[in-house]
Amino acid sequence: MLSLMSRRELFRVLGAGAALMGIGSAGALAASTTKSSAANPHLPASASVAASSAVRGVVADPTHLPPPIQRSHSIHHEISLEAREVDSEIEPGAKFSYMTFNGQVPGPMIRVRRGDTVSLTLHNSARSTTWHSVDLHAVYGPGGGADPLTVLPGQSKNITFKAMYPGGFTYHCAVPGEMDVHIARGMYGMIVVEPEEGLPKVDREFYIGQNETYTKQMPGKPGPRDFDPIRLLKEQATYVVFNGAFLALTTERFGAMHAKVGETVRVFMVNGGPNLLSSLHPIGNIWSRVWIMGQLVMPPMRFLQSVPVPPGNAIIADMDLPVPQTIKIVDHAMTRALNKGAMAEIEVTGPQNPDIFKA
Amino acid sequence: MLSLMSRRELFRVLGAGAALMGIGSAGALAASTTKSSAANPHLPASASVAASSAVRGVVADPTHLPPPIQRSHSIHHEISLEAREVDSEIEPGAKFSYMTFNGQVPGPMIRVRRGDTVSLTLHNSARSTTWHSVDLHAVYGPGGGADPLTVLPGQSKNITFKAMYPGGFTYHCAVPGEMDVHIARGMYGMIVVEPEEGLPKVDREFYIGQNETYTKQMPGKPGPRDFDPIRLLKEQATYVVFNGAFLALTTERFGAMHAKVGETVRVFMVNGGPNLLSSLHPIGNIWSRVWIMGQLVMPPMRFLQSVPVPPGNAIIADMDLPVPQTIKIVDHAMTRALNKGAMAEIEVTGPQNPDIFKA
Amino acid sequence: MLSLMSRRELFRVLGAGAALMGIGSAGALAASTTKSSAANPHLPASASVAASSAVRGVVADPTHLPPPIQRSHSIHHEISLEAREVDSEIEPGAKFSYMTFNGQVPGPMIRVRRGDTVSLTLHNSARSTTWHSVDLHAVYGPGGGADPLTVLPGQSKNITFKAMYPGGFTYHCAVPGEMDVHIARGMYGMIVVEPEEGLPKVDREFYIGQNETYTKQMPGKPGPRDFDPIRLLKEQATYVVFNGAFLALTTERFGAMHAKVGETVRVFMVNGGPNLLSSLHPIGNIWSRVWIMGQLVMPPMRFLQSVPVPPGNAIIADMDLPVPQTIKIVDHAMTRALNKGAMAEIEVTGPQNPDIFKA
Repeated sequence: MLSLMSRRELFRVLGAGAALMGIGSAGALAASTTKSSAANPHLPASASVAASSAVRGVVADPTHLPPPIQRSHSIHHEISLEAREVDSEIEPGAKFSYMTFNGQVPGPMIRVRRGDTVSLTLHNSARSTTWHSVDLHAVYGPGGGADPLTVLPGQSKNITFKAMYPGGFTYHCAVPGEMDVHIARGMYGMIVVEPEEGLPKVDREFYIGQNETYTKQMPGKPGPRDFDPIRLLKEQATYVVFNGAFLALTTERFGAMHAKVGETVRVFMVNGGPNLLSSLHPIGNIWSRVWIMGQLVMPPMRFLQSVPVPPGNAIIADMDLPVPQTIKIVDHAMTRALNKGAMAEIEVTGPQNPDIFKA
Repeated sequence: MLSLMSRRELFRVLGAGAALMGIGSAGALAASTTKSSAANPHLPASASVAASSAVRGVVADPTHLPPPIQRSHSIHHEISLEAREVDSEIEPGAKFSYMTFNGQVPGPMIRVRRGDTVSLTLHNSARSTTWHSVDLHAVYGPGGGADPLTVLPGQSKNITFKAMYPGGFTYHCAVPGEMDVHIARGMYGMIVVEPEEGLPKVDREFYIGQNETYTKQMPGKPGPRDFDPIRLLKEQATYVVFNGAFLALTTERFGAMHAKVGETVRVFMVNGGPNLLSSLHPIGNIWSRVWIMGQLVMPPMRFLQSVPVPPGNAIIADMDLPVPQTIKIVDHAMTRALNKGAMAEIEVTGPQNPDIFKA
Repeated sequence: MLSLMSRRELFRVLGAGAALMGIGSAGALAASTTKSSAANPHLPASASVAASSAVRGVVADPTHLPPPIQRSHSIHHEISLEAREVDSEIEPGAKFSYMTFNGQVPGPMIRVRRGDTVSLTLHNSARSTTWHSVDLHAVYGPGGGADPLTVLPGQSKNITFKAMYPGGFTYHCAVPGEMDVHIARGMYGMIVVEPEEGLPKVDREFYIGQNETYTKQMPGKPGPRDFDPIRLLKEQATYVVFNGAFLALTTERFGAMHAKVGETVRVFMVNGGPNLLSSLHPIGNIWSRVWIMGQLVMPPMRFLQSVPVPPGNAIIADMDLPVPQTIKIVDHAMTRALNKGAMAEIEVTGPQNPDIFKA
């Protein structure tokens, strides 16, 4: 049966057996360059090229996302993604074998308008050790695109689709039988299909992805991290992280996000899973407008504290910033925030507002 | 205390002790026939009789459900359910001791109109090894009906209730102290109380139940499956299945569901649990209208990807079918779909629509 | 890094090192008295004093909560909470070391009106063995107040905040690196910020908190209960309880709640977590109006069965009582209700209503 078919059998089905087997299991891979940047005028550089300025290790820069859509007409996009296997530190001193889109976790945020068409090419790096694919929840079609976009190392494939419905959607690798492993190694991202009328304006936007992973070693000590299929089967995560690494978006690691008192910020948050529901909470603040479950048809809900985001789902959520503070964004399943890495920071600077808060 | 009272003590309370103990633990049970079919003119055969055409093993036929309600007046229903313990294969070559309503998982879908009255009889097969009951979330009353409907083997009991509020609701066995085991063995189903004005019309309807179970043996190898109370306590499921068996509703096992390009389909989905929240997702499609948490008062939400369905809850969710494809319905906690059986298929045939999707 | 900083290091940072270390680990602590009752005219006694009539062991009296707000103008509140460590029985014969606000689980319900200001003082009992704090999800400010309200044993600190947005919110201890343990030991409660126009009237209100905890010993046998940090890391709870103890609010332990046929009751339910999502269900009844996720801007949803309440969230949910019955409120993750303690009872007395339910 497909879902239990071994990788070897599937390669045989695809007619690529012996050639691929010769590749062996590559070690640490240098980040390769995407060839597609020139071919993609409609996406900002960040969306198709994993520039070193936008990524540290595999950690996607949360400020690096396509701008809001201003158009009132449909256009055609040429978008390329590259499947890349990258060894990088999930914690300082702790290497982990990631699988990524464009070398970053989450993969580049894709942003289109309802009614737009997209030509999407998935290239699988020649250095990859296995096949990859991409299933986009914004796509009507076989496997959400994954069936025709299943690519062996060195291959490229293409689909064209029309964005028929608005929302914030997950995309993720979906190779049969192993997609939970590929997601847990980092292969997911977000595609936003804005409604025709666009989204309400905000001052800043951030892009955050949550996923959990399953390792034989626990967090906290240096040394390599080996994937643990038994813990995966038990759905018992050792790491729960934002943008791919333990406390990545905090001053402890690569730095916080930044904003100013009086601004409104928007968080595009995708939960790759593969298995855990997130309860996303901004400590010391409130989601003042939330499009739950990624839907953009109903008006946003107001003033939500910890918002459930099922695996393979997303939210778009705004905060007002009336006071200076460091907002810690956490999965309010608190053990994940404290011990598994699920914390990110937004530093909000500006004048005190003692009418609202005074210590 | 009731919830921890042993089965033996409870039988004594019920005054049936010694007689029941003599039954012993029955082995594989032949499917028995429900006597109630003739007495139930308002439910289609599928809802009160587990005809062989509608069930393979214990797997309920997802196309076998009562038709939409056309009436604009209230009526009275006579409905019978039978508690039956059935040994059947959860995977090919892997027998499991199921507990069921009418020999099928999920139990028959019951469909009434708000304001209707229902006379519900629960019969416990004389071949059963223990007591059973039924708690319907659509019922105002002690135990949702379970208190007066607790029946020893060979017994029948009856309640009459009025369907006071609309929605899609779970029903399940609710014997004290063991109801999680009985649900995990298959004893749950769905009762739909349509609002007075009915539901929007669709072209096809499907009926799917999710539950998880807890076995000492892992999926994938033949041999008997023994229930594992330790894994139950840990809420660590080995199987997560639709309609009772591993990949039951796929071409790998008993066949996919079928629909045609251009149609609209509706899924009535009940999550029996007993413990896991499902994140129901149609791969390559989108839930275009979803009545979340089974509620039928608010308008449906639009364009949801993976919808949280808590244990003991349900959703009613529609899909449009603009392109030919095999839609895989999964719990997007992906390890459950890949390794525990939580995948069902809808094969959609018809002309390509290259404006929307082109490989 | 902060979240992994040891307790010893943090005490050094706070300049309290040696002094505190001298306290050692206290054994069973007698309940101390809160000094603040006189200073708090706007909260009923129950909200600032853990009177013996309102608490048995640590189990908060679910009928002891501030009354609905009748005002149409803003006021200022002086509210005090005391962090107290209390040894008490989680089951008969099974002592557990609780951490509490005011000696009760959940901590006192705080009830204000949008636009009100609150001066909140947190005192940490001199008998405490460690620091404590409070993060309120109703507060715009650093740590939701927790940063300035982190107090060593014997200390008091104060903040003033304005309730800017309506809703039912969690508050909880939030000391760095250990807040999941403190919550799992009982340090959480609910603050309700009523909208300017108030809430629809009901006949009775109840206050229920859910949390799970993690012990080396399983429920069911007498003897001390030791906290299990390994099970916490695995998010594998041994107890899931309402108001702090196994089946606390049932006739098996401290008695059910009570109401009468024809009344409408409202449940203020907070899920402290620290990790588990609750699926709150009233057996034999339905939540006829539910403000999901604690939000009070959108109208309530109607007729929900098992409502998801993420950790660090809350709901406000009403029931109508058309028939006499004992309603069992459960987490519909059924193994928690049956084996881990997550069941509470409301006894509804009055005349039968055979038009609706007849056994």
